[in-house]
Amino acid sequence: MNTGRNDQTAPDRIKARYWIETAYPLEDAAAIMAGEQSTGTFVRVPGETDELRQWHAAHVEELVELGTVDAPSLTGSGLPKGYNLPAVRRTAEVVLSWPLANMGASLPNLLATAAGNLFELKPFSGLKLLDVTLPPVFLDAYQGPQFGVDGTRRLTAVYGRPVIGTIIKPSVGMTPEQTAAHVRMLAEAGVDFIKDDELQADGPHCPFEQRATAVLQTLNDFANRTGKRPMYAANITGEIDQMLRRHDLVAAAGGTCVMVSLNSVGLPAMNMLRRHAQVAIHGHRNGWGMFSRSHATGMSFIAYQKFWRLAGIDHVHVNGLRNKFCEEDSSVMASARACLTPMFPAPHKPCTIVPVFSSGQSARQVHDTYSGLGSMDLIYACGGGILAHPMGPAAGVRSLQQAWEAAASGIALRDYATNHTELREALEAFAG
Amino acid sequence: MNTGRNDQTAPDRIKARYWIETAYPLEDAAAIMAGEQSTGTFVRVPGETDELRQWHAAHVEELVELGTVDAPSLTGSGLPKGYNLPAVRRTAEVVLSWPLANMGASLPNLLATAAGNLFELKPFSGLKLLDVTLPPVFLDAYQGPQFGVDGTRRLTAVYGRPVIGTIIKPSVGMTPEQTAAHVRMLAEAGVDFIKDDELQADGPHCPFEQRATAVLQTLNDFANRTGKRPMYAANITGEIDQMLRRHDLVAAAGGTCVMVSLNSVGLPAMNMLRRHAQVAIHGHRNGWGMFSRSHATGMSFIAYQKFWRLAGIDHVHVNGLRNKFCEEDSSVMASARACLTPMFPAPHKPCTIVPVFSSGQSARQVHDTYSGLGSMDLIYACGGGILAHPMGPAAGVRSLQQAWEAAASGIALRDYATNHTELREALEAFAG
Repeated sequence: MNTGRNDQTAPDRIKARYWIETAYPLEDAAAIMAGEQSTGTFVRVPGETDELRQWHAAHVEELVELGTVDAPSLTGSGLPKGYNLPAVRRTAEVVLSWPLANMGASLPNLLATAAGNLFELKPFSGLKLLDVTLPPVFLDAYQGPQFGVDGTRRLTAVYGRPVIGTIIKPSVGMTPEQTAAHVRMLAEAGVDFIKDDELQADGPHCPFEQRATAVLQTLNDFANRTGKRPMYAANITGEIDQMLRRHDLVAAAGGTCVMVSLNSVGLPAMNMLRRHAQVAIHGHRNGWGMFSRSHATGMSFIAYQKFWRLAGIDHVHVNGLRNKFCEEDSSVMASARACLTPMFPAPHKPCTIVPVFSSGQSARQVHDTYSGLGSMDLIYACGGGILAHPMGPAAGVRSLQQAWEAAASGIALRDYATNHTELREALEAFAG
Repeated sequence: MNTGRNDQTAPDRIKARYWIETAYPLEDAAAIMAGEQSTGTFVRVPGETDELRQWHAAHVEELVELGTVDAPSLTGSGLPKGYNLPAVRRTAEVVLSWPLANMGASLPNLLATAAGNLFELKPFSGLKLLDVTLPPVFLDAYQGPQFGVDGTRRLTAVYGRPVIGTIIKPSVGMTPEQTAAHVRMLAEAGVDFIKDDELQADGPHCPFEQRATAVLQTLNDFANRTGKRPMYAANITGEIDQMLRRHDLVAAAGGTCVMVSLNSVGLPAMNMLRRHAQVAIHGHRNGWGMFSRSHATGMSFIAYQKFWRLAGIDHVHVNGLRNKFCEEDSSVMASARACLTPMFPAPHKPCTIVPVFSSGQSARQVHDTYSGLGSMDLIYACGGGILAHPMGPAAGVRSLQQAWEAAASGIALRDYATNHTELREALEAFAG
């Protein structure tokens, strides 16, 4: 790892790309961002020497003007002195870079620099983090995913098609025994992957230990009987000692995956879990809407998922096409593709992870998902698309497998459905 | 702690207040929120029995209509079926409640429930978490602040006025020795509290161990000589093992405070640090703009600070009046008052913490700060307001003490300045 001042000219500067909206001249606005997030302050202080700036200032690497807006997207921003109304607010993309010397290869401290106070800077009526590019020296400090795509295929023994998954519903209210009975039904239906809802963690009505023990015993029985072991993503979200203990219970009981609500636990807890983990880590992004719902603040999923990949998750939720939330299809596909795009060039570890599609998914979205992603390396999670199939859940799973067979073979869904009953029934049941 | 199904009628339901904007009938919209975040799903599933709903469903406790908006604040939301354009979008405040049985007294899991997927729900073109109200059973699981107001006064030996603080600038680029020399100058000037910038943590150019050791040695020397020991909030933000190790170094070297970037580390890491901590924990909210900048998504600081108070911080940043960021004064004061408002009724621990005012602060904002807060229990942090004082930093500190003397005595700033030179010079130097 490079240290100290040699970093200024080294290739391992940290870069971050932003979308901005400002009434300031764009060059001034970008310079303010760079100053505030490195050597500068509102008032230049005596210690901010030219030498110090030379080695530690953030640089404006790129500045591309995009267009103007009629009104500020966010309230509270300011105008430069002497500004003549009516306001012209410009939008642009800005790339800043920092020497590694400023914060070291530390994800929490990178976050404080690249996604810190700058969202509140007065000149900006909009500022969103779009992407970060990290030098491979971060791989000395972080391990990245332990299982990723290949490990998830190995643990589920699913090859040549996506892992077909589902979520235990109702989210809350079932006892551990009821949950295990539900999981048995799902396993019998042929599901490859079953996850807890993020609302179900360790409430007193369904304590984690009892639930996970009952579910994993059920899956062990099923595996002994059939040779197939569905992956169960047990929601271990909690305090750090709880998460490590719950992980150990899962691993000891033959489980292959734990689930964590990312925004609930933070990066350092994830890093600690990753260093400890013997099973895959399923990342749930609930609360992500806080970062994503406004176009004018927060961060893009492209940036967000890089922090978590490096910290060690193996899977992450990306929503699904024609989903029941607010996210557009183009955003869903961009997120999913990002998960499968290497974070670091060869020969470094690429840190790719499995995108998890969910929310209102059925056989109907399969072709578009495949053509958009260009890969079968995903978890395709359906609730109603399995449970509400008119011929039952096993037919629901078969309909999904058939849809993916069709997509892989380049056969239209309608055509494949003519001689595949489960798929045909699914298309009728889940029409529009 | 109550367990299982007795919670449904117990007084310890968890409540959360939201602002919403929707084209749906308000009752329908609130019911969708409650359903999605408890027993429901997009499609009612067989296991969602009436009995299960009775015990585990979230309730809509209040629904207050506020008014209509002309256009959706956020894109991507949907309209109810059969909706007749032009759209009428209503805003409202909604209070939901959950039985403790659903998630237990767990902050990470409470966050996943109260601030999870619901931000992305299709019916909403705006949804913001405004407040949470937690039953005191959370105090069995969490410790809250260890020092708070009283402890911070004891550690700094500052009584009858605010703790006068400052931030080490330039943020990055100084060596450990330069930092210690700067701190010595600030201590000599009479500052009570000195903090690292959030950009300065453990970069290779200024490693934490060397910086904290040098600074604390300097402060020990100063304390031995003068009897006054300024509090140094050493930024320990990092991985969990690093934070615990850095805390131990600070405590062993006579330090009285550590600083943590909250959004960088997450709630479980904070809880772990709190259980371990021997010194005060200074919470830095950098990145807070992601949650706050849009009126239509994210969460209010009123809600946010409750999570962190319970997890164990002693201080938190609230910006300052007429600050250099985008935040309005009314928001600043509401945040600061929230920190000093008990989270739990007596005889439970109130969990109050110290609000930290900063950003463009000088003697000029003192009277308004005092009248707005109604208390001297705060840290008043100034950069230029101390360092840029024309008579030097000691006069800068004196000007602030004088301004607070005036405010406490009900004397106008101008009047007090007539026979207090440092204050008079400050008012001239920091005019407008």
